[in-house]
Amino acid sequence: MSLDPASGGHAPREVPAKSLPVPATVSPRLRRSISDAALAPAGAFLRSPRTLEQWRGLVAAIAAQGAERLPALLAARPTAIAEQTLGGVTVRRLTPPTLSARHQGRLFVHLHGGAYVMSGGEAGIGEGVLLAHAARAEVISVDYRMPPDHPFPAAVDDAVAVWRALIETHDPAAIGVFGTSAGGGLLLAMVLRLKALGLPLPGALAPGTPWADLAGLSDSYQVNAHVDGVLPHYPGVLEACARLYAGEAPLDDPLVSPVHGDFAGFPPCILTSGTRDILLSDTTRVYRALRAAGVEARLELHEAMSHAEYNQAWDSPESEQVFADIVAFLDAHLKG
Amino acid sequence: MSLDPASGGHAPREVPAKSLPVPATVSPRLRRSISDAALAPAGAFLRSPRTLEQWRGLVAAIAAQGAERLPALLAARPTAIAEQTLGGVTVRRLTPPTLSARHQGRLFVHLHGGAYVMSGGEAGIGEGVLLAHAARAEVISVDYRMPPDHPFPAAVDDAVAVWRALIETHDPAAIGVFGTSAGGGLLLAMVLRLKALGLPLPGALAPGTPWADLAGLSDSYQVNAHVDGVLPHYPGVLEACARLYAGEAPLDDPLVSPVHGDFAGFPPCILTSGTRDILLSDTTRVYRALRAAGVEARLELHEAMSHAEYNQAWDSPESEQVFADIVAFLDAHLKG
Repeated sequence: MSLDPASGGHAPREVPAKSLPVPATVSPRLRRSISDAALAPAGAFLRSPRTLEQWRGLVAAIAAQGAERLPALLAARPTAIAEQTLGGVTVRRLTPPTLSARHQGRLFVHLHGGAYVMSGGEAGIGEGVLLAHAARAEVISVDYRMPPDHPFPAAVDDAVAVWRALIETHDPAAIGVFGTSAGGGLLLAMVLRLKALGLPLPGALAPGTPWADLAGLSDSYQVNAHVDGVLPHYPGVLEACARLYAGEAPLDDPLVSPVHGDFAGFPPCILTSGTRDILLSDTTRVYRALRAAGVEARLELHEAMSHAEYNQAWDSPESEQVFADIVAFLDAHLKG
Repeated sequence: MSLDPASGGHAPREVPAKSLPVPATVSPRLRRSISDAALAPAGAFLRSPRTLEQWRGLVAAIAAQGAERLPALLAARPTAIAEQTLGGVTVRRLTPPTLSARHQGRLFVHLHGGAYVMSGGEAGIGEGVLLAHAARAEVISVDYRMPPDHPFPAAVDDAVAVWRALIETHDPAAIGVFGTSAGGGLLLAMVLRLKALGLPLPGALAPGTPWADLAGLSDSYQVNAHVDGVLPHYPGVLEACARLYAGEAPLDDPLVSPVHGDFAGFPPCILTSGTRDILLSDTTRVYRALRAAGVEARLELHEAMSHAEYNQAWDSPESEQVFADIVAFLDAHLKG
């Protein structure tokens, strides 16, 4: 083993190739999800788009995949979907069949994932539907603008515009904001921007495996590369999305990579990740930064779960637990 | 990729060999620890003892290593060490130079790690010294009996014997129990046994990266194999220690592998692990089982940290944070 000069004289660790069995320590449904991912062809994630046309092709392919999955979710979780405009931004109001009296006067705002480039439109509401049903409450899912047409800070601007519109009629302390992956990073960036603007903050936050270091320096980008069945590696599409999204901003701008933000004064946060998650370290670093800033924070970790797999394997007991924990945490911290 | 019949028709995930750089996302001290581990020869952990003589040789070698490290720790953290007998068991009372008034009337009980076979004697007190200084409180470190001479349930019996002796003179709700690896597993087993005996329970627990599944089924035994710089893999010494310790008991006996225990009624628990920890999944599974049983539990995770590395790199800011979090949690939950 030799010292790596690029690593400041530190020695890298050599890890041999391995064949990871599907663990017996998770539910049958999650085992199936893990196995299906291992069998799936590597596909689009190996090819990074180079032209505007290729980007639009990737976005359309992922949108089609999302649209294909949505009917099964809506059959199991019937939800009224009303498209509206709030602060000039398209949102979808998601209403489950019954509403809990506990959440009267509260609002749950959803920011979807998709690496800041994908999963806009109706296909982006899945996680919002799951939370609407777990809480038996209405969810506002924000269809923020994305590249290639609208790079940073359009997404942050849109989240803030929706926030400004909502707090005209709602108590900010009764509003919770949640989202996964890019949605988790975006909600952190949104609250950093709200702080800077001197605007009131939400009552509680639920960043799920937030994409918080777009430069890809977190350790789990390496450790869980090819281990994660949902998002197998950073180089390729993920890195390309980071650069496409950031546009002219540096990747370590705290509003692009909120792990570099100052979390002092943040509302209580519940974070979710899994032991196979390629963003396990992004989640961990955000958790530590929140705690170091004196913020009330809770970390929920799940055995053998890959990045955001609770949204894909939404009919697993693990996913039900994820949303139950988020709802319980928001319920404990939101006003009303 | 093909289906693995041994895995119930589930497909394993193929992970290519990788060279893990030392991450820039941790302190310089932890970077040095990670780099040192990568440079160290694989050593004893590749060779599993087969004869009684080889076992004694391994125990002596690890004891010598521990004894070699202790003076530096005690120079930095001066501690009075008084060997005593409690309930027929050897313990060491560890007293730091100053005592905090906050902890008057409280007791902190330490169960050392070492895979249930190693790190007995004075070399096992290191973590106890660190907590004694972090809390500015006295610590009772239990030198429980171990194989090859004393397999399970000797260690559990000793922990319970010390507990019985302590609660004759102390309020159980004012006693916290902590320990790492085998020490974390043992404290969980001890409390399971106390429940079964109808004895009063401690006020709070701090299992650090507990060895909770001695059969090695947890997913991180695979995912973090050769990633963890402290405990590189389960097959070999670790697996051999599991079998030597369990003796005639099955590895899935809840007192051997407490992940299978019923945690209902447990006192509040703070768990600690790292993203490179080979026992990340043991920790995660215990955390989930505690929460499912309705126990107040908190999970503290650290970026790029290997198994129990906070005890080795005790002069790192990450280690200071680990002990500060444990002390704060015990302080919040112990009576007095």
